[in-house]
Amino acid sequence: MDAQEHSLTRWGSADETPAVEDRVRDYLTQRVGLARPWPRVDPRAEEVPPSRMRGDVVSALIDIVGAENVSVEPGARLGATGGASFADYARRRTGDVSDVPDLVVRPGHHDEVVRILTVLSAQDVAVVPVGGGTSVVGGLRMSVPRVALVLDRLGDLLDLDPVSGIATIGPGVTGPCLEALLAARGFTLGHLPQSWERASMGGYAATRSAGQASTGYGRSDEMIESLVVATPMGTMDVGRAPSSAAGPDLRGLLIGSEGALGVITRLRLRVRRLPDTRIYDAAILPGFAAGVAAFRDAAQSRATADVMRLSDEAETATTLLMSGPTGLLAAGLDRYLRVRGVDREGASLAILGWEGTDRDLVTARRAATWRALRRHGAVSLGHRPGESWRRHRFAGPFLRDALMDAGYLVETLETATHWNGYLDLHADVNQALHSALQAPPGPYVMSHLSHVYETGASLYTTVIAVADQADPLAQWARAKSAATDAIMESNATVTHHHAVGRDHAPWLEAEIGSLGIDVLRATKHAVDPRGVLNPGVLGL
Amino acid sequence: MDAQEHSLTRWGSADETPAVEDRVRDYLTQRVGLARPWPRVDPRAEEVPPSRMRGDVVSALIDIVGAENVSVEPGARLGATGGASFADYARRRTGDVSDVPDLVVRPGHHDEVVRILTVLSAQDVAVVPVGGGTSVVGGLRMSVPRVALVLDRLGDLLDLDPVSGIATIGPGVTGPCLEALLAARGFTLGHLPQSWERASMGGYAATRSAGQASTGYGRSDEMIESLVVATPMGTMDVGRAPSSAAGPDLRGLLIGSEGALGVITRLRLRVRRLPDTRIYDAAILPGFAAGVAAFRDAAQSRATADVMRLSDEAETATTLLMSGPTGLLAAGLDRYLRVRGVDREGASLAILGWEGTDRDLVTARRAATWRALRRHGAVSLGHRPGESWRRHRFAGPFLRDALMDAGYLVETLETATHWNGYLDLHADVNQALHSALQAPPGPYVMSHLSHVYETGASLYTTVIAVADQADPLAQWARAKSAATDAIMESNATVTHHHAVGRDHAPWLEAEIGSLGIDVLRATKHAVDPRGVLNPGVLGL
Repeated sequence: MDAQEHSLTRWGSADETPAVEDRVRDYLTQRVGLARPWPRVDPRAEEVPPSRMRGDVVSALIDIVGAENVSVEPGARLGATGGASFADYARRRTGDVSDVPDLVVRPGHHDEVVRILTVLSAQDVAVVPVGGGTSVVGGLRMSVPRVALVLDRLGDLLDLDPVSGIATIGPGVTGPCLEALLAARGFTLGHLPQSWERASMGGYAATRSAGQASTGYGRSDEMIESLVVATPMGTMDVGRAPSSAAGPDLRGLLIGSEGALGVITRLRLRVRRLPDTRIYDAAILPGFAAGVAAFRDAAQSRATADVMRLSDEAETATTLLMSGPTGLLAAGLDRYLRVRGVDREGASLAILGWEGTDRDLVTARRAATWRALRRHGAVSLGHRPGESWRRHRFAGPFLRDALMDAGYLVETLETATHWNGYLDLHADVNQALHSALQAPPGPYVMSHLSHVYETGASLYTTVIAVADQADPLAQWARAKSAATDAIMESNATVTHHHAVGRDHAPWLEAEIGSLGIDVLRATKHAVDPRGVLNPGVLGL
Repeated sequence: MDAQEHSLTRWGSADETPAVEDRVRDYLTQRVGLARPWPRVDPRAEEVPPSRMRGDVVSALIDIVGAENVSVEPGARLGATGGASFADYARRRTGDVSDVPDLVVRPGHHDEVVRILTVLSAQDVAVVPVGGGTSVVGGLRMSVPRVALVLDRLGDLLDLDPVSGIATIGPGVTGPCLEALLAARGFTLGHLPQSWERASMGGYAATRSAGQASTGYGRSDEMIESLVVATPMGTMDVGRAPSSAAGPDLRGLLIGSEGALGVITRLRLRVRRLPDTRIYDAAILPGFAAGVAAFRDAAQSRATADVMRLSDEAETATTLLMSGPTGLLAAGLDRYLRVRGVDREGASLAILGWEGTDRDLVTARRAATWRALRRHGAVSLGHRPGESWRRHRFAGPFLRDALMDAGYLVETLETATHWNGYLDLHADVNQALHSALQAPPGPYVMSHLSHVYETGASLYTTVIAVADQADPLAQWARAKSAATDAIMESNATVTHHHAVGRDHAPWLEAEIGSLGIDVLRATKHAVDPRGVLNPGVLGL
């Protein structure tokens, strides 16, 4: 069952899970409390509830895609079960796989998707598109009988226009695969979220994802030139030009539609020539507030780096701990602290990366970012910690596996707001999480800023607490609810790049208003009159 | 009637209209044909058809905003009549003012707008929001009885958040007024379309406008952080953060909604610190194709200027003619041509501008742009032609007044496409216009590229022909239709920054598909069930 365990109860396989070093374990015990290792229960096919799909629906789907691309077998259904949140993993670690789909269908062409959706709409059968299955907001979870529309067969690079810099792809292609195909032709997309190793491009579009280099390469919504979407009412094909004034932005309406307005079957993405210059630096700032001011200054001077990441004091302390007492980072930091007379607890770590094909321009942009940062007390730690971050940029989820195994609740949440309210938001989210998880010695809460705009930035928060193994879902639900209430009270957005799914749906009306909900409902009714497309996401 | 003439039959007043120099007149006669001066007919209040508004509607509106803000007087209604296209001006030059609204209402608060829309919806009375009245696509024109909702009383700078760099404004504020208010506080918006002197910010949002500096400052849709929209069903208030993944982009749905989905009553705009460094250069390239390749190279090297404008050979020739045989530009050009042995007809003029608060960065960005341009044979003409362009950047519409007075049809159209098809699009639009306006010696057609994206660019075309004074509207309709068909056949967008209005509505289905139209209809029905909001735009 290794292949299943991989995706259902953890991010990586057991082999890929790093060991938790003693000093990290001691630190966590002291700061968060003593955890009891989580029992390892791997869901097995024999525990999967029987398929509820009617025989006539199965036959109709076989008529469209062939028997080899339709399955109601437990193993196939387990394999098409998505969800990578703490709650998803915690629930499945008890052996609960009640959320498996009832049938898996794997179309090989857009027209097949339209026909599948037409049949399922006529039969009132719910359908959820499945790419990498990495939703952390319940985007794939539901209890009604449903079809999982798995998009792996639509995973090709179909065309590369090197003049316009546009790649045409199927939605099922994953990040590493796409980057390899593009690199062979001298191009890159540059979309690198934490989920990069497993998530699909269609999923990124459906969830308005943003990658670690979004400050320089743009968010998914900025990379998408056009998209083709299959619905029960036919096809939408939107985006004829780099930009248009031809009425409301329907491309933007479909991006972020989370499978509720159709299935994305083709995307055209803006790609760039592979950079031949890449410079990554690390910097220390005298506290998170100074760092936020520095990042704001850089953004408002149009002097951003392509990767800009600023850890608050708590995350900085953790990074230092992980790099060890003899680590490069700690050595550089200690030099700095000695000079400045700053408390080690008061330091804030920044990672900065610049990339491009014009070396002089990359160098000039780097100098401009540093001018802005130095105005706020930044000191360089040199290239090596920055390069180290770049090498380990996808390590987070594997570390979470290790901490969950050790008995900890580990989860993240994220939002964004304007600069004016940024530090208050940071404080309020911290306060909410501490209040909700107050069993002594309390949770460890750490945050970073990692997507920079001229008017504001994202806030990404990681929480570690001793898991309440009796009811970890309720434990996290309390904390998540408190943090999200704080986010909404701060006028921040309920999600900057994780999507709404089912987990954020209760707050969507606060975000867009009741008339906004009505507009979404009307839109959905136009393309999905029977309401079979991923019912429940976006509160629809 | 000067004030009326100003907006109804021409852009500027007669006093503001430049003289057409003899050599320009001779050139036009030779290239386009001999024109007969257009008789000057100024629409007068006594020619305005009587208001068709029912008395109970008038009373209901007076109850909401007071008698001083409601008028059915001919003068007030003439003053609220918009439309600045060639067809609008040509029709009114015959004294035809049949498209005046039937009533003018001037709300002073968002809540009044909601109440007005509620009343008008209940009474099935059409309503069109009026900002600067500068639509060139029939955005304000209709024949059914209608209320003009004039937004001049909602024209304030309500708040400036200097930390986030966000200005909160009413929709009625014009470009010069807003820039003056911002400059006094050390900020700028940088949205400078040709219509800047008269159009309103609400209008820019409603039409997805893009200004001359959009490459550096962004399009209107990129500047808008949030907007509040009044509808007959209540209020929408969307945009809580610089960016969000909270489902489909409703902000993008309302931007470009052209008054058909509601009335924009408040906007929050991203503003920047006033630049202290501004450098404008002119360059000559060996032909439009070389210039397009150079601009593409700059964009794909992330080495764009903030203003990037490239004239094709025909527009370059006109610019040289206007600057005169002894002009700086001609002198610089002749030097270049001598060195290169290039035919003067084969030259393409580029205007480039860089602005910012970090002088070293501005200088480095300028050097990077020039590196890209030089790879394609660009030669500098120095600062003075660039500065001259900047000083005269809003002169175009005044010049059109002069040419219309002289008896010429003068109109513009615009689109955008990806780089790969750009030159074919340019040729096809030219061909279509020449075929449709073929009376010898034929039209003069000239174009420029002025909004640059990594994957493509805009194309803006000006047409001059001897006006068929017997039926100038039919003459232009033929040409516009032929050009738009060519645009759609080239897979370009029907409009890059002028909006759909009524003029482009017949092509909208080709742009977004029939299901896209269905989605717009469903959206409209959710916010405007009786269909009273600017009926006819967007084909709704």
